[in-house]
Amino acid sequence: MATIVQKYGGTSVGDTGRIQNVARRICATHEAGNQVVAVVSAMGDSTDELLRMAHEISTSPPERELDMLLSTGERVSVALLAMAIHELGHEAISLSGSQAGIQTDTVHTKARITGIAGTRLRDTLDSGKIALVAGFQGMSPDEDVTTLGRGGSDTTAVALAAALGADVCEIYTDVDGVYTADPNIVPQARKIDIVSYGEMLEMAATGAEVLMLRSVEYSQKYSVPLHVRSSFTDKPGTLVRKEDEEMEKAVVSAVTHTTEESKLTLLRVPDKPGIAANVFGALAEENVNVDMILQNVSEQGTTDISFTVMQADLPAAQRALDRICDKLGVAYVLGEKMGKVSIVGAGMKSYPGVAARMFKTLAEQGINIEMISTSSIKVSCVIERDRVADAVKALHQEFQLGG
Amino acid sequence: MATIVQKYGGTSVGDTGRIQNVARRICATHEAGNQVVAVVSAMGDSTDELLRMAHEISTSPPERELDMLLSTGERVSVALLAMAIHELGHEAISLSGSQAGIQTDTVHTKARITGIAGTRLRDTLDSGKIALVAGFQGMSPDEDVTTLGRGGSDTTAVALAAALGADVCEIYTDVDGVYTADPNIVPQARKIDIVSYGEMLEMAATGAEVLMLRSVEYSQKYSVPLHVRSSFTDKPGTLVRKEDEEMEKAVVSAVTHTTEESKLTLLRVPDKPGIAANVFGALAEENVNVDMILQNVSEQGTTDISFTVMQADLPAAQRALDRICDKLGVAYVLGEKMGKVSIVGAGMKSYPGVAARMFKTLAEQGINIEMISTSSIKVSCVIERDRVADAVKALHQEFQLGG
Repeated sequence: MATIVQKYGGTSVGDTGRIQNVARRICATHEAGNQVVAVVSAMGDSTDELLRMAHEISTSPPERELDMLLSTGERVSVALLAMAIHELGHEAISLSGSQAGIQTDTVHTKARITGIAGTRLRDTLDSGKIALVAGFQGMSPDEDVTTLGRGGSDTTAVALAAALGADVCEIYTDVDGVYTADPNIVPQARKIDIVSYGEMLEMAATGAEVLMLRSVEYSQKYSVPLHVRSSFTDKPGTLVRKEDEEMEKAVVSAVTHTTEESKLTLLRVPDKPGIAANVFGALAEENVNVDMILQNVSEQGTTDISFTVMQADLPAAQRALDRICDKLGVAYVLGEKMGKVSIVGAGMKSYPGVAARMFKTLAEQGINIEMISTSSIKVSCVIERDRVADAVKALHQEFQLGG
Repeated sequence: MATIVQKYGGTSVGDTGRIQNVARRICATHEAGNQVVAVVSAMGDSTDELLRMAHEISTSPPERELDMLLSTGERVSVALLAMAIHELGHEAISLSGSQAGIQTDTVHTKARITGIAGTRLRDTLDSGKIALVAGFQGMSPDEDVTTLGRGGSDTTAVALAAALGADVCEIYTDVDGVYTADPNIVPQARKIDIVSYGEMLEMAATGAEVLMLRSVEYSQKYSVPLHVRSSFTDKPGTLVRKEDEEMEKAVVSAVTHTTEESKLTLLRVPDKPGIAANVFGALAEENVNVDMILQNVSEQGTTDISFTVMQADLPAAQRALDRICDKLGVAYVLGEKMGKVSIVGAGMKSYPGVAARMFKTLAEQGINIEMISTSSIKVSCVIERDRVADAVKALHQEFQLGG
C-alpha cells in the first residue's frame, strides 16, 4: 500500500463546488488502495479578506494575533473538505496543524517546522481513514498557533510526506506543472516533464512561483519526490526528483524572473573587517531576507556594498540601514523598481559560454545589467523592472526553450 | 483588584468598527484597575455563512467537522479584538477555547464543559495582560475541537467567571437588559433592574432569549452575579443574582413566550410500568430535548402521552417515535405549529389564584390551552402558535407589567 500526500492550493478549493471536485480526486486515490493525507490551503481569497479586516483595525497587527487570525482559513477548508468526502461515502478526519503534530519554532508569521509528532496522523491512516491537514500552520512550544509564511501549505505537505515516508508528495495547483518560462509573458513556454531538485531549487529561488523554495529544500533533504500538477485535469504534471544519469540535462531548462526586487547600495563604506557583518547583522535583526550581495572597491580604502531585497521588506531594510549608516557615517542610495531575470539548467556545468550568451542577448535588447550572480547551474541578472518581460522573451527564444 | 469577565455577542462585534468599540470598553475596564477576561462570539452572521457553505456540501455534515468549521468564527473575533486593543496601547492575548483550558465532553455541537484548566488564563491576568477567549468552544479528551451549542459563549463566560472567582460576569448584548416581555410584541415592556437566579432560570427556560438556560444554571451553581447590559450604552442593565430579603418579589415579573414548539401525542399507550421510560429513552438516544410532558388516562388500561419538543428537534423526535411506536404497536399525532406563553414571578408562591387569572385572560382572548405546566414561580401554557403574540400582550396588561 502506497502512502500519498496531496496538497491543494487556495484556487483548487476556491468554492464549495471545487471542494467537491477535490473530494472526488482524494476518494479516487483512496479507492485505488492508497493511504491518503491531503494538506489544504485557505479557500481562494479568504486570507486576503481576513487581512483586510486586520488592516482596518491596525497598520501593524501583532504577529501572534495575525497567526491566530489567518490560521482559521485552512481550518475552514479542511472541515468543509471532510464533509464533502463523507458525502462520497469515505471516512475522513480534519486536523489542525497542532492536531497533526506540526511543531514549529516561535517566529510568528514565518515559523519553521522543528518536528512532526505523527502518532495521531498514523493512527488515522492505519484505521483506514483519510487524513485532512490544515496547511500553513503549526504550534510553537508555548502552545501558540504559528503560521509558516508564504507557500506554507507546500512546506506542510512535504514535511508530512517526509515524516510518513510517503511515496510521493503531489502538489495540486491551478497550472499544469512547471514551465520553461511564465506563460503569461511567453506564450510558447513549455511544461517541463521532469526536473532535478537542484534546478527546481534555483528556479524557485529566482521566481518560479509554482513551488516555494523551502518546500523544495525540504523535499530534497528527505528525498521526497514531488509531483506538481493541476487539480483541474488528470494529466501528469512536472516530477521533481533526485538527479540521476537518465535525466536529460538541458543546458538551460527554464527562464525565471521576479519583479519585486529593490536594490540598496551603501556608498564609500570603510574597507575593513566586520563592516559587512554589521550591516547584514542589522538587516537580519529586522528579519529582512537579503537576496543578492555585491561588494565593489570604489575608492582608496572604501568600498560600495550593493544588495537586493524583496520590495515588501524594503521598509524594514531601510529601518536597519538608517540605524547602521548613522553609526558608520555613510550614505546609501535606493533603486526601488528593479527586477531579476535568471537562466537555470543542470547542463550549464558542462557547457562554457552560457553566461556570455545571456549577457549578449540582454545587450542586444538594450537592457542594462545592474548586478550579476551565478551558481554552477544558474545565472541571474538584476535589471530595470520594466524591461523584465522583454528579457524573459529574448532569453526563452535564444535558448530555444519553446514547445 | 476586581476580576471581571465580560462576554460580547455576535452583534457587538459585527464589524471592525464595532470591534474597536468593544476594545475601548475593555480597555476602560482595565484602566479602572480590574483584571479583565473578555469572551467573544463570532462576528455577526459569519457563523451563518459557514453553515451555508457546509449545507451546500452536505445535508447532514458530520458533527465533529461542523465543530471544526464553526469554531473558527470566534477565533477570528478574538484575534481582531486583540489587534484593536494593542492599537489602544494595552496588552491583550487571544486564546482559543483549548488554550483557555476549557475541557468538555465528546458530544459534538452540544458539548458540556467538564472542567477549566485555568493556569494559562491566570498567568495572563497576573502578568497584567487582558485575556480574550474565543467563546462557544472547548476541547474534548480526544483533543478534538467541540462547540457548546446555542448560547455557548455565555456558558464559556460564566464558567470562566466561576473558575476565576470573578466578581461579576457582564453579558454584553444588543438590548439594554432583560425585559418584562418581548418589546417587539409589547411596546410598553419595561427593563427589569434586578432578578433572582430562580426567576431568570424560568424565564430562560420559557423563551427569554437574552440569556441561555445553561449559563444561568451555571451562574447560580457557582454564585456568579450576572450583569446583562448593552454594548452600545453605558447604562446599567439587569442584574441577576441570589434571591435575598431585600429583593422585591413581584407576583409576576415577566411574560415569556416561544414559537418553536411542536406537540406530539402517543395515543392509547398500554398503561403499564416502563412504557414512559421506553419512549423518552428512545428520544434521549436521538439527543432530543423534551420540554413539557403530560400523561392523561383516556380509556381502560391505556393512556395518552403528550410532550413538546423544539421544532428543530422534530425530525429526530419522529425518528425515535417511529421506532418505538412500531415496537409498542401504537400511533402518534403531531401538532406541528405550537407555541408557549408563560408568566414568571418569585412572588407567585405567596399569592394564590395567579394561574386562574392567567387562564381567564387567555379564555377572554378566545385562546385554547393545549397543555399546562407549573412550577412554584411559573405557569406555562402551550397554545396555537399564531395566537402567541395576542396572549403575551393580554397577559402583560393583566399583570400590569408596563412601564
